[in-house]
Amino acid sequence: PVSPGVLPLCCRLPVWHRLPRPPPGLPLAPSRPFSNNKIQVELDESSGVATMKFKSPPVNSLSLDFLTEFCISLEKLENDRACRGVIITSAIPKIFSSGLDIMEMCGKSTEHYAEFWRAVQEMWLRLYSSTMVTLAAVNGSSPAGGCLIALSCDYRIMAENPKFSIGLNEAQLGIVAPFWFKDQFVSVVGHRIAERSLQLGSLYPAPEALRIGLVDELVPEEKLLEKAAAVMAQWLALPDHSRQLTKAMVRKALLDRLLTHREEDIKNFVSFVSKESIQKSLRTYMEMLKKRKS
Amino acid sequence: PVSPGVLPLCCRLPVWHRLPRPPPGLPLAPSRPFSNNKIQVELDESSGVATMKFKSPPVNSLSLDFLTEFCISLEKLENDRACRGVIITSAIPKIFSSGLDIMEMCGKSTEHYAEFWRAVQEMWLRLYSSTMVTLAAVNGSSPAGGCLIALSCDYRIMAENPKFSIGLNEAQLGIVAPFWFKDQFVSVVGHRIAERSLQLGSLYPAPEALRIGLVDELVPEEKLLEKAAAVMAQWLALPDHSRQLTKAMVRKALLDRLLTHREEDIKNFVSFVSKESIQKSLRTYMEMLKKRKS
Amino acid sequence: PVSPGVLPLCCRLPVWHRLPRPPPGLPLAPSRPFSNNKIQVELDESSGVATMKFKSPPVNSLSLDFLTEFCISLEKLENDRACRGVIITSAIPKIFSSGLDIMEMCGKSTEHYAEFWRAVQEMWLRLYSSTMVTLAAVNGSSPAGGCLIALSCDYRIMAENPKFSIGLNEAQLGIVAPFWFKDQFVSVVGHRIAERSLQLGSLYPAPEALRIGLVDELVPEEKLLEKAAAVMAQWLALPDHSRQLTKAMVRKALLDRLLTHREEDIKNFVSFVSKESIQKSLRTYMEMLKKRKS
Repeated sequence: PVSPGVLPLCCRLPVWHRLPRPPPGLPLAPSRPFSNNKIQVELDESSGVATMKFKSPPVNSLSLDFLTEFCISLEKLENDRACRGVIITSAIPKIFSSGLDIMEMCGKSTEHYAEFWRAVQEMWLRLYSSTMVTLAAVNGSSPAGGCLIALSCDYRIMAENPKFSIGLNEAQLGIVAPFWFKDQFVSVVGHRIAERSLQLGSLYPAPEALRIGLVDELVPEEKLLEKAAAVMAQWLALPDHSRQLTKAMVRKALLDRLLTHREEDIKNFVSFVSKESIQKSLRTYMEMLKKRKS
Repeated sequence: PVSPGVLPLCCRLPVWHRLPRPPPGLPLAPSRPFSNNKIQVELDESSGVATMKFKSPPVNSLSLDFLTEFCISLEKLENDRACRGVIITSAIPKIFSSGLDIMEMCGKSTEHYAEFWRAVQEMWLRLYSSTMVTLAAVNGSSPAGGCLIALSCDYRIMAENPKFSIGLNEAQLGIVAPFWFKDQFVSVVGHRIAERSLQLGSLYPAPEALRIGLVDELVPEEKLLEKAAAVMAQWLALPDHSRQLTKAMVRKALLDRLLTHREEDIKNFVSFVSKESIQKSLRTYMEMLKKRKS
Repeated sequence: PVSPGVLPLCCRLPVWHRLPRPPPGLPLAPSRPFSNNKIQVELDESSGVATMKFKSPPVNSLSLDFLTEFCISLEKLENDRACRGVIITSAIPKIFSSGLDIMEMCGKSTEHYAEFWRAVQEMWLRLYSSTMVTLAAVNGSSPAGGCLIALSCDYRIMAENPKFSIGLNEAQLGIVAPFWFKDQFVSVVGHRIAERSLQLGSLYPAPEALRIGLVDELVPEEKLLEKAAAVMAQWLALPDHSRQLTKAMVRKALLDRLLTHREEDIKNFVSFVSKESIQKSLRTYMEMLKKRKS
């Protein structure tokens, strides 16, 4: 077996625990769902490709429960030798994910805030370091934490609907994206665009998201999953072990930065979100959302 | 009040000393000039936007006096709760700023060189870390240090006159941009363009500056200030505290790098500029400028 | 003489040993070849420009012998005060260089692997830190190590033939580009494109290579050397000492990273390439190449 860590400086990841996968072309097997609460997961054993569909109404917000289920689902796939790639998409029309659940940040105990933030970190650490090919099929709007999920994948395809937008819009809510959201964003769109977008909390309609490189391509919504499968097949045509080592090498610096500062990051989040001024910003934002809905 | 430093790794700046600003919409007040030597500053209290106009003939070169006035003016605005943003532009036709004043680098004492360089550093540290929204309205050519001022702002609008050019052209003078000019440049245009441009000392006419991302947009010269006001209003629509924390987070690494190496950087500048070969390059360049003028 | 290291943080390179060059315009001298085995070197003393032509059939692969000759040739030019710039191109139709010689990585002793890898490192360290202006005239395909040579130059011109492709395709061979190939690639095309391309082992036809910034311009093949000479003249119009100090400053971080981890990098390469699974990947690849040829 190919063991990780043989390359310079770079390759041993904390969440790296995959063995090399069997070659594609196993006997066709029926899809088997193995979770059906907030995230529906189906693995097609013939292609080695799993699909994770977010189905947590109304807007797939990233609650503590959702994040926990996400990590468990991903971990199961990661350990399943039949699975080499995962397509992440939404079962809810018009929304990919609305991002972190503001309810988890409002009027709760500091213990709760800490637990929630650790789950947010865990989600990113696992997804960004996944040894599987990860592909976001963004079939709806994807602000804040929803955008982070897409950014953490290896490739992003978005429905070419200009009503769908994507971006790290935390500044619009009166809050601040943490340093590792920023690092992740910079790694995809570059420093200049990230700096401006983060300050303005910009959300980009799909065509603009493509133009700045925030997503890799646009396709008509009805062709999104078909295209995702085709792109996935291209990625899976490569030998897993070299692709995995390369991915680990390229992503190591950002992962290490959060791992080194993880507890400090939690402490800072708890302290920030506990401030009365921030609580007030979040309550105002939630009331605005409620009004808009009704 | 929102105190800085609550977010991971990132937010406590050495020149960070602003309290949160009052919301926009204060009673209309007349503009009040409070400096009128080398830089004319006007604050419109109704919008919370100040304008700094360079008016140091013939070419707004950054002399020690100019830099000192710049820092004091910026500091005053920074401490003025009525001011949330500043537009930097020139009162002199065809030139934004010609950059560092070569007279300050020629035939002076090492003490003078050290004092001058510290002022150059101070200017950049204050501008790049300003908690205000900073917007460069580049209404003329802007080589070397003039370009640095524009690069340090949050946004750059340039008059769409192809006769106006901008860039870090130090290499053309036989001198070398310091590492923090380079870091600042890389952060805006990326490593590849910065590397090539710095080696060649490239000056970019406005249309090319837009193409490589050195400026954010071009407008006809007569609409420059109007457009600057409109863009500023967009930036000021965001809550100050999250925008400020975000800006601090994104800019911290570059600021820290100079702060850590500040004395070394001064020493290196003094040693470099004191060399006879460099003095000769500078004298040659000045003579060329004089000839061109006459 | 201008001594290196006078600028902040940045300028003292391990392989920096050039004195400033005499000004251009020396008396016309005949070209003088001084190597004619695997690399043909000609120096035009009138322009101060040398041409290195790879002529190691069939595909200019980077064997230990080739790399040694490359380093010696470069060193000679580096120490020749008459030489200020070098154009690197191929004397073999359709191929610039096929990259590292797989024969050197197959079925050899660990001592041999270590010696080979040190030579690969040396080639990059010398080329990337060269005080001369280095220009790649890419007149054929240039995968893997061939691409690295082009990336290490100051400027890249490619023949506009879509049949010629360039890229770091190691992942396609079941191997992994080392961290400094990756760093070098990121510095030219940015993090996002590098990440995707390295994972997929992408080779870019000339027009796409231009689009992503992997090469700087395309010209018809028959005009390639003429264009290279014209671009070189533009670069040589700048004073050497400021251009050299600027180049050293911009490139220092990447050079230092390999220098700091050089022995570890060799050890990792030897350990990686000695694995039976990797040996098998390489043998499979070589057999595929042989079949394709016949």
